[in-house]
Amino acid sequence: MTEEKILLDHGSGGKLSHSMFSEMILPLFENFELSKQDDGAILDVEGARLAFSTDSYVVDPIFFPGGNIGDLAVNGTVNDISMCGAVPKFISVGLIIEEGLPVKQLKIILETIAAAAKKAGVKIVTGDTKVVPRGKADKIFINTSGIGVIPAHVNVSGSNAQPGDKIIVSGTLADHGIAVLSSREGLKFDSDIKTDSAPLNKMVQSLIRSGCDVHVLRDPTRGGLGTTLNEIASQSRVGIRIDEMSLPVTGPVRGACELLGFDPLYIANEGKLIAFVPEKDVDKALEIIRQDVFGKVAVIIGDVTSEDPGKVFLQTSIGGVRPIDMLTGEQLPRIC
Amino acid sequence: MTEEKILLDHGSGGKLSHSMFSEMILPLFENFELSKQDDGAILDVEGARLAFSTDSYVVDPIFFPGGNIGDLAVNGTVNDISMCGAVPKFISVGLIIEEGLPVKQLKIILETIAAAAKKAGVKIVTGDTKVVPRGKADKIFINTSGIGVIPAHVNVSGSNAQPGDKIIVSGTLADHGIAVLSSREGLKFDSDIKTDSAPLNKMVQSLIRSGCDVHVLRDPTRGGLGTTLNEIASQSRVGIRIDEMSLPVTGPVRGACELLGFDPLYIANEGKLIAFVPEKDVDKALEIIRQDVFGKVAVIIGDVTSEDPGKVFLQTSIGGVRPIDMLTGEQLPRIC
Repeated sequence: MTEEKILLDHGSGGKLSHSMFSEMILPLFENFELSKQDDGAILDVEGARLAFSTDSYVVDPIFFPGGNIGDLAVNGTVNDISMCGAVPKFISVGLIIEEGLPVKQLKIILETIAAAAKKAGVKIVTGDTKVVPRGKADKIFINTSGIGVIPAHVNVSGSNAQPGDKIIVSGTLADHGIAVLSSREGLKFDSDIKTDSAPLNKMVQSLIRSGCDVHVLRDPTRGGLGTTLNEIASQSRVGIRIDEMSLPVTGPVRGACELLGFDPLYIANEGKLIAFVPEKDVDKALEIIRQDVFGKVAVIIGDVTSEDPGKVFLQTSIGGVRPIDMLTGEQLPRIC
Repeated sequence: MTEEKILLDHGSGGKLSHSMFSEMILPLFENFELSKQDDGAILDVEGARLAFSTDSYVVDPIFFPGGNIGDLAVNGTVNDISMCGAVPKFISVGLIIEEGLPVKQLKIILETIAAAAKKAGVKIVTGDTKVVPRGKADKIFINTSGIGVIPAHVNVSGSNAQPGDKIIVSGTLADHGIAVLSSREGLKFDSDIKTDSAPLNKMVQSLIRSGCDVHVLRDPTRGGLGTTLNEIASQSRVGIRIDEMSLPVTGPVRGACELLGFDPLYIANEGKLIAFVPEKDVDKALEIIRQDVFGKVAVIIGDVTSEDPGKVFLQTSIGGVRPIDMLTGEQLPRIC
């Protein structure tokens, strides 16, 4: 009899992560806020509606083209809070450092955290530092948690997709995952591919202020666009169709994916969002997203149907249709 | 020229941790909330006063007499929020798991987290799971962050100690540190020593509801009572005198400390608080704390003076007086 063990795949953000959450975690902690399964919890606190989110970052390497674990950790939580329709305000930073990390590297990471917080307009208000002996962690892991305020009229959730909604993606796919991979030893194939790590709070706030009826916001990080769309199809009990021809992927990223046998649909993004809006508002929403510095090449990639609830289909470039499942197996461990 | 590296001592909670915070972290993230240096940040959010705190747990071993990393992580954040005078409400849980952790162990830890949250009356509302390859972490690390609500009239801070205040400790010292140490291989000296890990929120709420004028609350975790008193003496610019004869330490813990050359003043506690209250309220405060299940042997250990601001002195059992500094060096790595 072999003992069941935790696998890398349990942390992929894909199918096994989801089954662990729904089988092991949710039944134990059962409460309304957690069961919503959005990027953050929506809380009623003293009459205010707050979004509260947490993420740990274990990316390897800690420095990669276009960024490091510091801005990744700040932007990640800023974005998770933003995807609840909230304005992110306060961030905590918890460091787990491996003994022997050069102080110079820590300083660069802390400076990057401070700069990212400033850029996003959030305050780092509390933190914690642990150091473990050499060999008991890998250089540095960072947890960020954050609090945001949800404006009174906003109601954004992965459960709110409706048949007829159009789906916008705010930019090119898979840049972050391929950038990190490219910086791992032995896999340097194109130095032009950089992480897309960016704060999306201003884009979200412009969208919400515009009066567009935004149903769903989500940032397709671990597990990629394919997994995120499956989560939404499942939460909202709707079908989703996307058009392969419309998916924005840069030439170098497409080339790297072909070379390595990766599907950009399952590669992590760290500065992109998908927005579900009713058809009547989609042109306006697209225009607003494109005005944001991180949304210049936003496009419509598909729509929501009442058929096949819980399922996602891809209209392929050669005219076929294939189902898109959640990520199975771990393509790229320690991508964020 | 040797490159400066991070040492275990940077995570001790003692002197080097403090100098790293004040030299490397605080100047970068400068803001009022962080500069207060209390156990959590106090935030104004939409008219409510919230406490927000974070801590990562890297304790080794993950199972030890009286508990495991799961209840330690919940109680730790419940207590940090409580020490701000707040009522803890919502907790996040971020897991970093080493590939290969037996699922059975993870289940026990998750069940312990759920039970600890229930006991403390807080909700686990959001979370995150990362898995890193074998050898890149050590079994499991847990971050908890939390949000609490501060009642309108409450003003508790490490900066509020005043000359004349009496200092109460809610129970025996050093149990947690010695329990964890005793369970490390080769150091099994007494199986009766258990962690004191416990939620202190109900004790704090009773104290606050009683109308006692509580100036400071703090839980002496990493770095122990000696370090915590130094933090308060420094934050409040007051002197502190404590009486060695009054310090509550159980026989087995005292014996273990003598055997190993440890000073209980610097060993971590995970279910104790110290309270600073004016002399007029101290009897009432002591009575209330003693009524709590975790405060039965609470005692007064010393008082606050206007002399020697920033310094802590111990009246020894043989009649002398010696200065008590913050912890220097790392006595017990990975104690929490």
